[in-house]
Amino acid sequence: MKRNILIIGGGGVARVVAHKCAQNNAVLGDIHIASRTLAKCHAIIDSIHDKGSLQRPGTLQAHALDAMDIEATKFLIRATRSQIVINVGSPFLNMSVLTACIETGTAYLDTAIHEDPEKVCENPPWYGNYEWKRRQACKNARVTAVLGVGFDPGVVNAYARYAMDTYFDSVESIDIIDVNAGSHGRYFATNFDPEINFREFVSTAWSWENNAWKANAMFEHRKDWDMPVAGLSTTYLTGHDEIHSMSKNLGVPNIRFWMGFSEHYINVFTVLKNLGLLSQHSVRTARGQEIVPLEVVKAVLPDPASLAPAYSGKTCIGDLIKGRKDGLPQEVLIYNVCDHKTSFEEVGSQAISYTAGVPAVAAAMLIAEGTWDIGEMVNVEELDPKLFIALMNRMGLVTRVRSAQGDHIVDPQPDVIEASTDGKLLNYG
Amino acid sequence: MKRNILIIGGGGVARVVAHKCAQNNAVLGDIHIASRTLAKCHAIIDSIHDKGSLQRPGTLQAHALDAMDIEATKFLIRATRSQIVINVGSPFLNMSVLTACIETGTAYLDTAIHEDPEKVCENPPWYGNYEWKRRQACKNARVTAVLGVGFDPGVVNAYARYAMDTYFDSVESIDIIDVNAGSHGRYFATNFDPEINFREFVSTAWSWENNAWKANAMFEHRKDWDMPVAGLSTTYLTGHDEIHSMSKNLGVPNIRFWMGFSEHYINVFTVLKNLGLLSQHSVRTARGQEIVPLEVVKAVLPDPASLAPAYSGKTCIGDLIKGRKDGLPQEVLIYNVCDHKTSFEEVGSQAISYTAGVPAVAAAMLIAEGTWDIGEMVNVEELDPKLFIALMNRMGLVTRVRSAQGDHIVDPQPDVIEASTDGKLLNYG
Repeated sequence: MKRNILIIGGGGVARVVAHKCAQNNAVLGDIHIASRTLAKCHAIIDSIHDKGSLQRPGTLQAHALDAMDIEATKFLIRATRSQIVINVGSPFLNMSVLTACIETGTAYLDTAIHEDPEKVCENPPWYGNYEWKRRQACKNARVTAVLGVGFDPGVVNAYARYAMDTYFDSVESIDIIDVNAGSHGRYFATNFDPEINFREFVSTAWSWENNAWKANAMFEHRKDWDMPVAGLSTTYLTGHDEIHSMSKNLGVPNIRFWMGFSEHYINVFTVLKNLGLLSQHSVRTARGQEIVPLEVVKAVLPDPASLAPAYSGKTCIGDLIKGRKDGLPQEVLIYNVCDHKTSFEEVGSQAISYTAGVPAVAAAMLIAEGTWDIGEMVNVEELDPKLFIALMNRMGLVTRVRSAQGDHIVDPQPDVIEASTDGKLLNYG
Repeated sequence: MKRNILIIGGGGVARVVAHKCAQNNAVLGDIHIASRTLAKCHAIIDSIHDKGSLQRPGTLQAHALDAMDIEATKFLIRATRSQIVINVGSPFLNMSVLTACIETGTAYLDTAIHEDPEKVCENPPWYGNYEWKRRQACKNARVTAVLGVGFDPGVVNAYARYAMDTYFDSVESIDIIDVNAGSHGRYFATNFDPEINFREFVSTAWSWENNAWKANAMFEHRKDWDMPVAGLSTTYLTGHDEIHSMSKNLGVPNIRFWMGFSEHYINVFTVLKNLGLLSQHSVRTARGQEIVPLEVVKAVLPDPASLAPAYSGKTCIGDLIKGRKDGLPQEVLIYNVCDHKTSFEEVGSQAISYTAGVPAVAAAMLIAEGTWDIGEMVNVEELDPKLFIALMNRMGLVTRVRSAQGDHIVDPQPDVIEASTDGKLLNYG
């Protein structure tokens, strides 16, 4: 059993994580929130108290932390007696926080791959550039590190593993489809940190085709999908974290990621990119100021967290998997639909933050309880997905499957989980 | 007779002005070029020597000057014994340079209205906010100040005056039409300083309708015109300097300015404006830098001067004037067509700089010679336009008129001007 959570980050996903930890503090113990900006942590804590989210009275504390500072992070882990760190800060922090966890023997979770501010779209597999170099160090220290356990990456990895185990004898292709059919009502905004958001689209879009990496241009390949609830949805082949581990771990020859974009989004993005305003490299103004254009774009765009109150509509994210079962062709879409307004009412963040934050807390609960506390570094598809999916069904992210047989909720182990107020999560009854 | 020119500015228009002054230094005397960046002045001087533009051997010197510094400007005027200042620097400098001229008894010319960096699109008439407040001071000092003597404002004001005097008994409307049918081959660029360029379009577009100011939104009113050479040209009602003096001086009930824009230009402009990237007001980045977004946009866009070598096509700018003559309706388009490549070959700048710079030098020659040295502040339409138009015909900007009677060159006084190598410009023979 592991107890006490240190959440690193103060944005929309951290807010979801903190609320969900609070809703499950009988299992998770003390909850600590650390960010460079202390006020953000306090705002989250106020929101948890306002909504009465704590499952039972318990510790809920804010801390100022520069998580690039490994020693400071280690000190805070020890001072708070945290046994699980949920890192939902900037992806630039991953390696620092992971190091602090390895050196203190603390379990580590994140929801997005490590990034170097100086580099964009590195060579695949991306995990090989940073995280996987620490696999042996995790094993030596018996540290559990679950990489990329948000929705995508994260749940979509578990979906792939679950579907392959359940519905297929062999799989030919996995198309991960991420569609936001919601509206924030603003001229233009990104749904998370614009700096991170745009970095996904400014360079090569890697896909895994016929068991090899293929370099595509962003917005080169368009595909329209008939998605549940969202309807006909236009998406573009996009580079994304999960392809970089699933291609190694699943033995599937074709894995692609498709993200939904409106024409308006693409137009604004194209203008900014072509003008050089998405550049990471500083320019010099006529007045002699050195400035990174992308940081200015970020400064003028709406704060993603500010969009949540007015956000309406739903997200639909899932895996369309094609292969064979019992000698016959089989096609399955395994997916979740999440509502922006419902998410906001529950935790004060929209569905994109909600879908990223809930899985990390479900994973933390499985580590706390022991099932996923495997003492090494893994990506989500390497873990048994059944309890994870079952737990999320009860935490607000319901999994459905659409196939030739119809469309229905998936509940892999209906009997094993019970609500608990005494710190006992699972009931293997 | 006035002699010796101080050119203030180091951009594309300053380059044209310097070349044209050099081509006429028998009349104009010594030529001095001053800019904050001395290297820009040296580059212009090198270009004049490369092209052998000096009419006869004479002084051609570069100076470093911050023209916001009135005392430094006065010192340079006196040190160079300049009797005419051609101000083609930033419009933010106008009032400082004008003050230096008044206090040293020097003739003053500019090509664009004064602007305050803190204000955009002030109340009409714009000249009333700054320049006209110094009319009495000019009169007292017997200082000639010709405001806005580029192409538009400038030549289009003279065109209006000339056409009214020549082709009309009464005029109902003047539509000034500015179309650039050229191409620079880049994704997006402005033809002059982006900071000044965009300021024209970010706020109210004032027009003069039925003898009153009318406030329009930018891109609210579109009109397609059949223009000589350029063909069918899409334009939008735009606020512009010349309306603010012509409405006062000409007694014409309707005066509008139309600028040509491509859909691509409007799209890029709209994205930048809606995102807040054209703002004059500084924003704070996540790293704590205070920065004016518009200055960053300027920094990433191509330097307008860099476009000239690849620029192809032509500009067409003129006045479409409607009224009555001898009791009958009359419609006249008085215009100039200028070629980007020819301009570049002659002076190293494209047609937009060329059309702005040549008129200022023609005006300087008329001041040097005495005809326009009227010892007070005026806008161009207050001066006799005939010699001005005749002189420009010989300097590279040919005036044409299109009416029901056909399309022909206008040469108001074919006999009065002769080429001169002895400092004698006009031959009233």
